[in-house]
Amino acid sequence: MNSHALSALGRRTEAPPISWLMATALARPRLISLAAGFTDNESLPVPEVRELLAELLGSGRTGQAALQYGTTAGDPALRELTACRLQSLDGGPESGAYSPQRVLITNGSQQMLYIVTEALCDPGDIVLVEDPTYFVYLGIIQSHGLQARGVRMQADGIDLAHLEAVLAGLKRKGQLSRVKLLYLVSYYQNPSGVTTSFEKKACALKVLRAYERAAGHPIYLLEDAAYRELRFPAAAGTEVAAPEPASALAARGSASRVIYAGTYSKPFATGVRVGFGLLPESVFTAAWRIKGNHDFGSSNLLQQLLARALASGRYEQHLNALQKRYARKAQAMLAGMAAEFPATVRWQAPAGGLYVWARLSPRLKSGMKSKLFRAALDKEVLYVPGELCYAEDASRPRPNHELRLSFGAATEANIRAGIKRLAAAFAPFAQEAGD
Amino acid sequence: MNSHALSALGRRTEAPPISWLMATALARPRLISLAAGFTDNESLPVPEVRELLAELLGSGRTGQAALQYGTTAGDPALRELTACRLQSLDGGPESGAYSPQRVLITNGSQQMLYIVTEALCDPGDIVLVEDPTYFVYLGIIQSHGLQARGVRMQADGIDLAHLEAVLAGLKRKGQLSRVKLLYLVSYYQNPSGVTTSFEKKACALKVLRAYERAAGHPIYLLEDAAYRELRFPAAAGTEVAAPEPASALAARGSASRVIYAGTYSKPFATGVRVGFGLLPESVFTAAWRIKGNHDFGSSNLLQQLLARALASGRYEQHLNALQKRYARKAQAMLAGMAAEFPATVRWQAPAGGLYVWARLSPRLKSGMKSKLFRAALDKEVLYVPGELCYAEDASRPRPNHELRLSFGAATEANIRAGIKRLAAAFAPFAQEAGD
Repeated sequence: MNSHALSALGRRTEAPPISWLMATALARPRLISLAAGFTDNESLPVPEVRELLAELLGSGRTGQAALQYGTTAGDPALRELTACRLQSLDGGPESGAYSPQRVLITNGSQQMLYIVTEALCDPGDIVLVEDPTYFVYLGIIQSHGLQARGVRMQADGIDLAHLEAVLAGLKRKGQLSRVKLLYLVSYYQNPSGVTTSFEKKACALKVLRAYERAAGHPIYLLEDAAYRELRFPAAAGTEVAAPEPASALAARGSASRVIYAGTYSKPFATGVRVGFGLLPESVFTAAWRIKGNHDFGSSNLLQQLLARALASGRYEQHLNALQKRYARKAQAMLAGMAAEFPATVRWQAPAGGLYVWARLSPRLKSGMKSKLFRAALDKEVLYVPGELCYAEDASRPRPNHELRLSFGAATEANIRAGIKRLAAAFAPFAQEAGD
Repeated sequence: MNSHALSALGRRTEAPPISWLMATALARPRLISLAAGFTDNESLPVPEVRELLAELLGSGRTGQAALQYGTTAGDPALRELTACRLQSLDGGPESGAYSPQRVLITNGSQQMLYIVTEALCDPGDIVLVEDPTYFVYLGIIQSHGLQARGVRMQADGIDLAHLEAVLAGLKRKGQLSRVKLLYLVSYYQNPSGVTTSFEKKACALKVLRAYERAAGHPIYLLEDAAYRELRFPAAAGTEVAAPEPASALAARGSASRVIYAGTYSKPFATGVRVGFGLLPESVFTAAWRIKGNHDFGSSNLLQQLLARALASGRYEQHLNALQKRYARKAQAMLAGMAAEFPATVRWQAPAGGLYVWARLSPRLKSGMKSKLFRAALDKEVLYVPGELCYAEDASRPRPNHELRLSFGAATEANIRAGIKRLAAAFAPFAQEAGD
């Protein structure tokens, strides 16, 4: 007799690799973690949330509404504010693509990614992802028995020629009918920090369209904009802030092909898990029904807190301060890397987000079982090995010489100290690194 | 080309039948809804939540902790309080069954039901359910491509002889390996109001055990205790409150076979979506990983609010008042039914929860397309047709002569008026009803 009765999904679902990293961090009190994707603790808007909740719960009428069930799709005011905000961020004119009717509120953008994947993908289906990509999404893919295919990245987003080549290859093999999604983390990507230009997103949509006939169904662009709001202001000094690219929603034909996932958790308070999606009609209906089965709607209290934060301007005010803060912390990390790291380590300065992606010489391994990772732990500093951010993809070896460094959670002093420790960990490997 | 690329699950997932009922209610402002499972609006703990949140967010230390990410399994204090509370409700001695390590915090108990089903069931698998049962769970079963088998109910819970007969029948047909779960809504059941005795739960566990060898794997008892805390106090007059039965966790061998799902939403505030599960180790691990993929943990702010409500005694204080309130409302409904309904309508007074289950003569249909349902709408009163609460099960016709009436959301005055309207709707059908 089996010792359990788990489903195929239950058996496939693996522990997230990050849980091992987090346990490691907890077990070593002196450790500086540049691994965690947590947000900056000091910057959390405690007084703002206190005031907003005091207002919301200050009257019986608004208080009762916040403490009662809402609807599955979400608080109408928050859906409206979300649609307006996206349209304004995209700088676009009125368009059906930004209808509040297409907004679904979820528990962080993570739940949106999960539900969309459930709604579209059967075991054996193929999801195109960036190489590297967000490792928790790779876990979702793996748990659902899907295959991931990596598309190479360039400084301004995915390599369109490689996207085309991957699709052409799948077509030749008769596998195009299994392709459902292209998943892009489009702003200050986790893990690489790369931002995809609007032109690339619009072109990617066209490339996908060109293969739909052969696929026999739509191929959606799932734009994960989780870091979008964490853009560095121009004044911060790391780089002159380029105008932020519009989302794929601003592209022609987006309304039927773009699934946009965003969040208010990271830009406001991660303990307040409110994310959202903006979806094409047929996908919306399926996702809304699935959301109903998951939890018939996110907490009304949290949604109304966010709606009030947005409508009152406190959200924007907090965000402006937060953007400056992260820009300073990124600057501290980049300056430390420039001063301390061997010349063979390369990186691209991000224009926002929480991460810097460092590339070593391909001869120097950075993986969880590598000497470098051990050496870093011995020096009491933790990073996310780059290998965790690459999909299983038989068409290429999995790169294993990169590091994801986060300036989100650590203090500026710890960022500086952590980078020094990392540099010290690199030292014994100078020869392997080609120095 | 297909117009969409939905997965099998995406295509299977149906709109909840209740959404049609809710839309009907919204479209008729004069309508009294005895259909909604919403909780009582006036009783929502607005001042309590305001105070608790002001305390929590009153210091930077506790405030920041509440607004930061937590862990996937949930807030340690809330897990501990939950395990203790369950042990105390069960009146049991220290036991491994109540370890906080087995507690997983979810977005309402609904998410727990969803995740457990994902973790255990593959398409084609069989879930045993009560006849009738919670219709949203039937939606989860249907969306995952599972089969439901109904087990008959008695006044004190499922009919054990019928459970045995259903299992024996499945064994004969060689389908036992597909049976993963028996799903029981054990306290003041939605929809029937029936409470399952402890003895029946313990016996049901033994019956399931007896078939495990032939099944080739464990068969779990999923105890949905969502209404457990909404017990009427003895003084309320509807009935002398019997001592509440312990949960199946108190039965021998429960630690490896009982999955307990509970919630703090209904007893405290439905806008605060915090539920929990207490699971056997192997199921816990799978559920915890799946929860990580869903949303890597429920809102820390809501969890810490609940932990503080529990630890401070405010939860208990609120609950005592709420229990009295619901008992009064149930009493109003039952008194109205006794005074107004024709003698052919039968019901069992519940000892808690939100529902009364009314049975008509089997000749009188109550379904959404029935003359009675139309007549009720004409009289501006809404109920949940009993047929929605029965699984698709080829082994019996789907009963269609019952009504779920809720005293949760409506005011006492509206409960009385609603029952009068229903009685008026019954009048023209007196003959069919056998009067």
